[in-house]
Amino acid sequence: MNDAREPFAAVDTPALLLDLDQVERNIRRYQQAADAARLRLRPHAKAHKCPQVGKLQLEAGAAGLCCAKLAEAEALAEHGLADFLVTTPVVGAMKLGRLIGLARRSKVSVVADSEENIAELGKACAQAGLTLDVLVDVDVGQGRTGVAPGESAAALARRIRENPSLRFRGLQGYQGRLQGVAALDERTRLVEEAMARLGRSEAALREAGFGVEIKTGGGSGSFPIDLHLKALTELQPGSYVTMDTNYAKVRFGGTDEHPLGQPLTLLASVISRPAQDRAVVDVGWKAASSDSGTPTVRAREGLVFEFAGDEHGIVRSGAGALALRLGERIELVPSHCDTTVNLYDAFVVHRSGRPEALWPIVGRGKSQ
Amino acid sequence: MNDAREPFAAVDTPALLLDLDQVERNIRRYQQAADAARLRLRPHAKAHKCPQVGKLQLEAGAAGLCCAKLAEAEALAEHGLADFLVTTPVVGAMKLGRLIGLARRSKVSVVADSEENIAELGKACAQAGLTLDVLVDVDVGQGRTGVAPGESAAALARRIRENPSLRFRGLQGYQGRLQGVAALDERTRLVEEAMARLGRSEAALREAGFGVEIKTGGGSGSFPIDLHLKALTELQPGSYVTMDTNYAKVRFGGTDEHPLGQPLTLLASVISRPAQDRAVVDVGWKAASSDSGTPTVRAREGLVFEFAGDEHGIVRSGAGALALRLGERIELVPSHCDTTVNLYDAFVVHRSGRPEALWPIVGRGKSQ
Repeated sequence: MNDAREPFAAVDTPALLLDLDQVERNIRRYQQAADAARLRLRPHAKAHKCPQVGKLQLEAGAAGLCCAKLAEAEALAEHGLADFLVTTPVVGAMKLGRLIGLARRSKVSVVADSEENIAELGKACAQAGLTLDVLVDVDVGQGRTGVAPGESAAALARRIRENPSLRFRGLQGYQGRLQGVAALDERTRLVEEAMARLGRSEAALREAGFGVEIKTGGGSGSFPIDLHLKALTELQPGSYVTMDTNYAKVRFGGTDEHPLGQPLTLLASVISRPAQDRAVVDVGWKAASSDSGTPTVRAREGLVFEFAGDEHGIVRSGAGALALRLGERIELVPSHCDTTVNLYDAFVVHRSGRPEALWPIVGRGKSQ
Repeated sequence: MNDAREPFAAVDTPALLLDLDQVERNIRRYQQAADAARLRLRPHAKAHKCPQVGKLQLEAGAAGLCCAKLAEAEALAEHGLADFLVTTPVVGAMKLGRLIGLARRSKVSVVADSEENIAELGKACAQAGLTLDVLVDVDVGQGRTGVAPGESAAALARRIRENPSLRFRGLQGYQGRLQGVAALDERTRLVEEAMARLGRSEAALREAGFGVEIKTGGGSGSFPIDLHLKALTELQPGSYVTMDTNYAKVRFGGTDEHPLGQPLTLLASVISRPAQDRAVVDVGWKAASSDSGTPTVRAREGLVFEFAGDEHGIVRSGAGALALRLGERIELVPSHCDTTVNLYDAFVVHRSGRPEALWPIVGRGKSQ
């Protein structure tokens, strides 16, 4: 069924494609912008979960990587990466045992948002004879993890300082919900509100005699705003590397409204042409995430994808006849990169359609 | 953090728990009902993707397994399972090469819904010196794959019969969308409509001189109706083994409105207690599927789970104070078993809370 003119003719489907030229361009773009603003870039590996992508980010000048879960950092550490901030509290005896193990072979810092967690971190590190870098996680408006801004943040910093096995390094203030707000002015307002909450926390800390070395946070959507605002010292964008249709809607302002390319796509095959107006493809909920919308069809005017179950998608034509034959391939652009990447074991890495390698997604499913 | 009284204290989170007592009960329930109705049961392995569960189904009396994708069947065949119906068309040179490989070492039949696919199946089997069992996939109302009912189905059966390397075995008529319709009368009406379409196809075939040995289809929701209607000879339920909150809403009628247990749950840990009314747990979109709704909290009155991103969930109390401490575990019931199972590498198999084994989900991510 595969036409010799078709790129990816030798790639079975569904497949997760990653255009390396565009990945490199996106990495360069954000790194150069961070460098120019004299801010550290610590990209979030939760988006790609792939050692090779992480290495490209570090080679470009990143200060280290963020991981959402300890298991992600463990998997990346096994593949030679070495400097992680775990951006979600690490809680409980089992996790702390693993954290100590990781800290023995890798540079790792964590965030904490409660006295109880700080106490158990300190105890585990004291028993292990380690000193651990800890940042206070501040709720800057997301209403998820994080201590309340201001005095409560300062109180936690004190608890960290009191603990001889812990080293207070600074604050984390991440607001995830504003990252995807498309309009720049609305997003700017929300970022300023969030950073004001972080600023109040920093002021309380300084009043209590603390230096705040690191202020970490931000994402791919707040990035252009964070560059100018300089409320953070370290930026954590993740999705900018792979991109998706939701981030593609985010406006960046300036002369270049949308500076990032779209390296990540899904390769799908038509497996049924049961009616004139409908083609069935081999991508459903198990091969593309649906939490944040529906993938779009790339570079095929008028074609619309809809989910049709766990293993199926249906492609229709918005106008006119549906020109898709059995076995034909189409590319889909995921609506949400993080959760789609998490469904695959490897990226099929290519340069503009020429497959070059399989890059393992070693952090896939590493939710612990 | 883990209380000795807590079950699963030694299990890290998030984890996919499977209560073996309840699995065995659900398997027995459907097998005995199928046996009593003298219908063959060919459970769909797309739901569990696990060799051990498949073996339990076969030991109970199943006639073989269904797989949605060739890669699922390949993975299960590597673990000793041997009789598969692939319920989605297998299209294109790469897939056909793999199908021939599987057919050499395992009993496998496929469905087809186009002349073009039948021709390529026949050619591949002729070249390989194999004879393949093929069923005609009929669209009985889902509007996904499947040829139109009636004459078109008979025409495809002719194409199969004309091909010396293919053996026509019967019809598949699956209607997925009606499976989750909660009300028994409404679901019954929809099943009857779907089976009338299959009946028309069978009539056209008989008129053309065909015997229709196998009529396969049905799911966990249509199961009690299929038992009585006897329009099918072979039933393909999948979710009945693991169950989820959507299938739990399906009414079965008779004295036992809901005969199936809920063996599948997610073990989650509280990783943050930032406010009186909110606990953050370590299950988000990467550890529980959201395509068909939101998981519920098991056996904890008034607690409500909501997704809070890729790696986080928030639990609130519907009424009164939220009695959850840092590190505490809760169990969630997935809204959709198939897509949640597909996020995990293994089931933590237990009997009423006593962990017994890790069962690998070898079909996880096997979407090709």
